This record gives sequence, C-alpha cells and structure tokens, in this order.
Amino acid sequence: MMDKIADRKRSWSIRGALWLGIVASIAIDGSVLAQSAEPVSPKLTDTLRDLLRKEMVSIEDASKQILSALVAGDNARVAELAQRIHDSFILQQSMTPEDRKNLMAAVPKGFVEQDRAFHAISAALTDAARSGDRAQQQEEFGKMIEACSACHAEYATDRFPKFAE
Amino acid sequence: MMDKIADRKRSWSIRGALWLGIVASIAIDGSVLAQSAEPVSPKLTDTLRDLLRKEMVSIEDASKQILSALVAGDNARVAELAQRIHDSFILQQSMTPEDRKNLMAAVPKGFVEQDRAFHAISAALTDAARSGDRAQQQEEFGKMIEACSACHAEYATDRFPKFAE
Repeated sequence: MMDKIADRKRSWSIRGALWLGIVASIAIDGSVLAQSAEPVSPKLTDTLRDLLRKEMVSIEDASKQILSALVAGDNARVAELAQRIHDSFILQQSMTPEDRKNLMAAVPKGFVEQDRAFHAISAALTDAARSGDRAQQQEEFGKMIEACSACHAEYATDRFPKFAE
Repeated sequence: MMDKIADRKRSWSIRGALWLGIVASIAIDGSVLAQSAEPVSPKLTDTLRDLLRKEMVSIEDASKQILSALVAGDNARVAELAQRIHDSFILQQSMTPEDRKNLMAAVPKGFVEQDRAFHAISAALTDAARSGDRAQQQEEFGKMIEACSACHAEYATDRFPKFAE
C-alpha cells in the first residue's frame, strides 16, 4: 500500500513537473518560495492594477468556496468555481487590446508563465471535478494554493511583504 | 531537479503514510473517499451534536483564514490559526467527563482515529508555520483538507450527502 502511494505520488510529481514547468519547481521547492523579483503592480497602468486587484479578490473568494465544496464532496460546485477562476483569468478576459499591450510591456516573462500555469491548474481542477475524481481535485487544489503563494512571493512582495522577510 | 522533487514527494508520502496511518490511506486513495459508514451525528447526545457542529464551523472558518495567510506568506498567522484548530479539538476540549463518556460510547473507533489524525495534522501545520517552512505548510494544509473530506465521506453523509452519491 505504501509503495502504491509512493509510486502514485512519484508519478504525480513527475507529471506535474513536466506539465507545470516553472511554477511546479517554485511551488514544490520551498527554498525558492522566498525568492522575489521586482513587484509587478507598480509597473502597471491604473486600469490594469485595478483589474488585477479585482481578479485576485475574486480568486481568493472562489478558492475559499472551493475548499467548502471539496469537504462537502460537491463535485459540481468545485467544477463551477474552478471554471469561474479559469474564465476570469486576467490575461484572457476584461482587457482591451491596448490593456493587453500595456500588460505585456510591463510584466516579466516569468509572471506571464506563472499566470498561464495557474490557468492550467484551474482547468485541471475543473476537469477533475467534472469527472468526479476527488483525489485529483485535492491534488489540483493544493497545486493552486502553491501557485498563488509562489507567484505572490516572486511578484507581489509589495502587497505581501512577509514573503520578502 | 525532477528526481529531487520526486524523491522529496516519495519521502513525504512514506512519512505521511507511517504517521497518519488510516487517514492518509483514505485521503490519498480517492476510491476510498466514496466509502461511507453510518453517520455519527444522529448517535450523539444533543449537547455533543451541538459541540461538534460548532467545532466544524470554527474549523472551516479557520481553514479559510489559513488559506489567506498561506498565500500572504504569513507564517505567524498560519501558526496561530492552526494552533487554534488544534486547541479546540473536540475530543480534548469543551467536554464534561460525562460528555466524553457519551461520545466514546456513541462513535466508532475509526472516527476517533480520524479525529486524532486530524489533530496531529493541525499540530504539524503549526510546527511548519513556526519554523517558517512554507513548502511543509502547503503539504500539511493539503493533508488537512484531505482529512476533512475523508472523515465527512465516511461519517457525515447525512450532512454531506454528495459523498454518498
């Protein structure tokens, strides 16, 4: 049983590392969590900063609702919320072509990559919930929270100064 | 790097399996999540049912606050909240000797074991937060949510009927 668990974890972690790339490495290796780049927010236009702030608030709220749905075994609700996080993804929605141009000019490549990886995790969580795979939902939810922390530690130390201590 | 991640995961999962015993097996193996025993709540006295309900509400609330603290890198806040979950543990606090006797007479051994394992996870999360180990906090937080789900799936299908579907 323990070998089975270990093998499953190993297979997950290898698949995760291949799939998530940079974010997985940062999130799993705690030592990298402390690494920080320049905060992204001050480089944004007022419009983009406001969009990003609203996006983050809605993601945090949805994540807490996902936690409640997970411990209630409510697959449909997890799928709905994860899909909502996916759909409100800041690089895909709510931006004019000019906002998009401004964003790409302001943020480093690593930020875009972490945003995309987060987007992929929300899609994987939606899929796991739709297929009723509860173990996989727990796995993806964990990756999602790790991805939040990793991105904040690297690009949002102005908002979350504890990551820079 | 991938080998390092896989080895670390393997070491975590073996340690976790040894340490958490039954809960780890149930939580990691998704197929077992669907398994349900008789709901515990109807077997309790009114006093105990009320205590358990209040405990569950406070744990859910604290878990959501831990999520916010984790993504803010706030180790001290994670430690405080995890300690609070630990201290309000239903089998350790708030019960008269008679309540305790009634509880032990009403609940199966597996329920007590899962409650103890959950208690141990909250202590491990407190320790990880106090030592500032963010990767370990993510790991323990994931185990905590898995333990909630596993126990609800087995002993609270009256409150969470989706687990019985």
